[in-house]
Amino acid sequence: MFNEARKLINTNAHIYIERLAEAVAIRSVSTDLSCRDDCFAMADLLHRWIEELGGSSDKVLVGFQELDDGSRYDLPPVILAEFSAGKPRQKPTVLVYGHYDVQPAAEADGWSTDPFTLSEVDGKLYGRGSTDDKGPILAWLWAIEIHRELELELPVNVKFCLEGMEESNSECLDDLLERESKGGFLSNVDYVVITDNYWVTTDKPCLTYGLRGLATFHCEVKAGTQTLHSGVYGGCIAEPMTDVIQLLAAVSEYGHGDIGIENCGRKSATPITEAETELYKGITFDAEAFRHEAGDVPALLGENEKEVLMNRWRYPSLSIHGIEGGYSGEGFKTVIPGAATGKFSIRLVPGQDGKAVEESVKAVLEKRFAELKSANKMTVTSTSSKAWLADPRCPLYQSGAAALLKVYGVKPDLTREGGSIPVAGLLQEKLGVETMLLPLGQSDDGAHSENEKMSKRNYLQGVQVLFTFLGEIARAHEERGDMPNGTPKRKGTLGRLKDIWYGLS
Amino acid sequence: MFNEARKLINTNAHIYIERLAEAVAIRSVSTDLSCRDDCFAMADLLHRWIEELGGSSDKVLVGFQELDDGSRYDLPPVILAEFSAGKPRQKPTVLVYGHYDVQPAAEADGWSTDPFTLSEVDGKLYGRGSTDDKGPILAWLWAIEIHRELELELPVNVKFCLEGMEESNSECLDDLLERESKGGFLSNVDYVVITDNYWVTTDKPCLTYGLRGLATFHCEVKAGTQTLHSGVYGGCIAEPMTDVIQLLAAVSEYGHGDIGIENCGRKSATPITEAETELYKGITFDAEAFRHEAGDVPALLGENEKEVLMNRWRYPSLSIHGIEGGYSGEGFKTVIPGAATGKFSIRLVPGQDGKAVEESVKAVLEKRFAELKSANKMTVTSTSSKAWLADPRCPLYQSGAAALLKVYGVKPDLTREGGSIPVAGLLQEKLGVETMLLPLGQSDDGAHSENEKMSKRNYLQGVQVLFTFLGEIARAHEERGDMPNGTPKRKGTLGRLKDIWYGLS
Repeated sequence: MFNEARKLINTNAHIYIERLAEAVAIRSVSTDLSCRDDCFAMADLLHRWIEELGGSSDKVLVGFQELDDGSRYDLPPVILAEFSAGKPRQKPTVLVYGHYDVQPAAEADGWSTDPFTLSEVDGKLYGRGSTDDKGPILAWLWAIEIHRELELELPVNVKFCLEGMEESNSECLDDLLERESKGGFLSNVDYVVITDNYWVTTDKPCLTYGLRGLATFHCEVKAGTQTLHSGVYGGCIAEPMTDVIQLLAAVSEYGHGDIGIENCGRKSATPITEAETELYKGITFDAEAFRHEAGDVPALLGENEKEVLMNRWRYPSLSIHGIEGGYSGEGFKTVIPGAATGKFSIRLVPGQDGKAVEESVKAVLEKRFAELKSANKMTVTSTSSKAWLADPRCPLYQSGAAALLKVYGVKPDLTREGGSIPVAGLLQEKLGVETMLLPLGQSDDGAHSENEKMSKRNYLQGVQVLFTFLGEIARAHEERGDMPNGTPKRKGTLGRLKDIWYGLS
Repeated sequence: MFNEARKLINTNAHIYIERLAEAVAIRSVSTDLSCRDDCFAMADLLHRWIEELGGSSDKVLVGFQELDDGSRYDLPPVILAEFSAGKPRQKPTVLVYGHYDVQPAAEADGWSTDPFTLSEVDGKLYGRGSTDDKGPILAWLWAIEIHRELELELPVNVKFCLEGMEESNSECLDDLLERESKGGFLSNVDYVVITDNYWVTTDKPCLTYGLRGLATFHCEVKAGTQTLHSGVYGGCIAEPMTDVIQLLAAVSEYGHGDIGIENCGRKSATPITEAETELYKGITFDAEAFRHEAGDVPALLGENEKEVLMNRWRYPSLSIHGIEGGYSGEGFKTVIPGAATGKFSIRLVPGQDGKAVEESVKAVLEKRFAELKSANKMTVTSTSSKAWLADPRCPLYQSGAAALLKVYGVKPDLTREGGSIPVAGLLQEKLGVETMLLPLGQSDDGAHSENEKMSKRNYLQGVQVLFTFLGEIARAHEERGDMPNGTPKRKGTLGRLKDIWYGLS
């Protein structure tokens, strides 16, 4: 059926692009309350398409936002939808997570085209949401549609969880996942696939099996209620900005490359294994191009490309993002802010416990603040979400790899990401099943930037990848049978794929 | 003539207020190029008034501002004006410095009245420029006018140097002062008086004999040309923000109360003398009110009111004003700026050399940056202007004190200021003559804030103070004669005043 599907995708290409254009035209910007109706419209469109394709869809309201003035705004609904395979009892269920809200966009930001009009230029489909994450969501729907058009029974049950607040911290999603995972809509899920991610390069597909977590910190020091003139008050008061600088210096004193705080540094990361080291060998990564994309920084940390990737993916890092308070504009103002807040974060890795990181950082801040003997008041607030790591040797990844190999003719790279997508860890933990990031877009798609695009090739071949993947995961599941350790009962897909990972068996 | 002048001032009060209203109505905001014509209009008004009073006035063009787009704007003129006493050869010359430009102002900033309409409420004259510095300039003119109306010869020659760029760093004033002090308009000046300053309280007049200088620093660390995502680049590059934090921490490591850099700390200040210590004894200063005005900071640095004042006036202080680059708004953004600039300044005091301070700070920054072994590039730029200190025992201060004592019935406090007015030091240095700050406004006038005001009392009594001062300085000058050390030839004003300063003789 692989070739039939490919032919059909080529025939339908203009329809898929028209539908993507229809989706991109809806300004479902979740951070902009004036676009809240558009978020609902986008949910309605997906809901209609799913039902037209024979799925069942539920738009679940999850709560509301309350502003300081007391006004309330309903949160966009989470779409919980399902496409049943013929014999649901014997077939596994794959849950697809995605989001239909988008980042803000305006032509004034530097777009070459109207961000809410899908524009094809040189084989690229430009438009806000094209790759993040409307394109990938739609590719899933067309992969299901092809089964219908080719009169094929779905090889697995496919469920969707599509939210409309991903770009706004997935507000209220936790509660829904908690509720639905316990005997609800999500209780019989066997595999989770997330297509909200990108290749490491522009030309080689990958599967992503790990993400760093994130601990965020706001460290505020307050003296008084107003901004003061340094000529009048300089020397007469303990300045909050000086305190904050000393505090930030204390947490970042190891400088670049490690973090000198207990539970936070490289030592607290899970030790690297030989198998993991092997994984890095074949990864296509151009450090020089990466350095250039970073705005021509003078150097990267890491002796070679493998070390740079490890710094990015498997080691913790501390970044200071800025200081709230004081004068941050151009030029000079001799102000003493009444309060200053240092903002920084630590990317967490497997082996690290978010709560322990938060506590250790707070202890360093408190110790340093005590040393300063400042009359001011310090307040620290923090949050943390764990790193996520899957075992890429499991059948889910082997199925993903098989699909990518068939469509692109190359073994995908096995990668991690330095960023954080908390829902991956959350779903893996709550549902207790194998979870995979299956990116359809390329490294240069510009997800949160101006001129966001998805290549026409990636969009259409993405449909083929997902169509193929559904067959592969069904076969892998069947081969795996009831073996508790996931070893396949007989040689089949997995037998063919066991050498797909460099050195892993 | 004291009483005749007082009667006349009361009679003329409404005229003086009308004229101040006329001046306040002119939007001579020097930082706002759209107001440049108004700056010229303000100069024209002063020029006309001076000539009508019998003075001679010259509007000197000092240059132009060139914008990045190549457009040029003429700088507002400096008014060099003169009122000759009858026998100029035998009478001394007093130079009055003031400025006719104002800070920006808009009702939207929180003004209770239109900032460019002088509004009298409860005996206070609200309006931009009322106290900074249009009111004090006009008070000088009316003090001269009274001599004319009372048919009195001026007791001294009075020269004016009135600039229109004071709120914009007095651009191009240096060159003019340099030129005119060498055989030009300013070459025969005997005393300099500046009325661009305020009392330390709302009810007791003062004379100000010292100002701190200022060294400013921009310390930029640059990695690349763009802002990066900490999830993608965190751990892979040396972050400029981390570098800047360590650099700022190094220069501010002594924390509050002193500066731990060679040539910059308290040790480099001129040692305090017994006479100076005595001066502080009688100064009216309410530290608790000062703490409250600072936005209720938890504590002031200093064991008692004297120490707080010393910290403010005679010791150096280092303030960190903010960081350019990164995210300084509310909330959280996981950005790594491509470049970050730390901005800080040091208030300089007598005994400190600005150039030495700049060099020492740069040395600390360079040493710390070398320790960081960062691949980034650091650039430091700095400026400095010296502290200014006059000897308040000289006849100029005694004359000022005598005038204030006559008008207000109290001995004025002898104060310094923590802020910086570079022109004071500049004039004293270039002309080599006694220089004095003679404030007419009160501590709560709000010079650069919304609702700037000058009390009607201070404006009108200010005219009386200046009228009286002109007579006092003429007499003191005559008494002083040609004695090289300034000791009076015979007992007179100075004899009466020698005990006016607490403990000084």
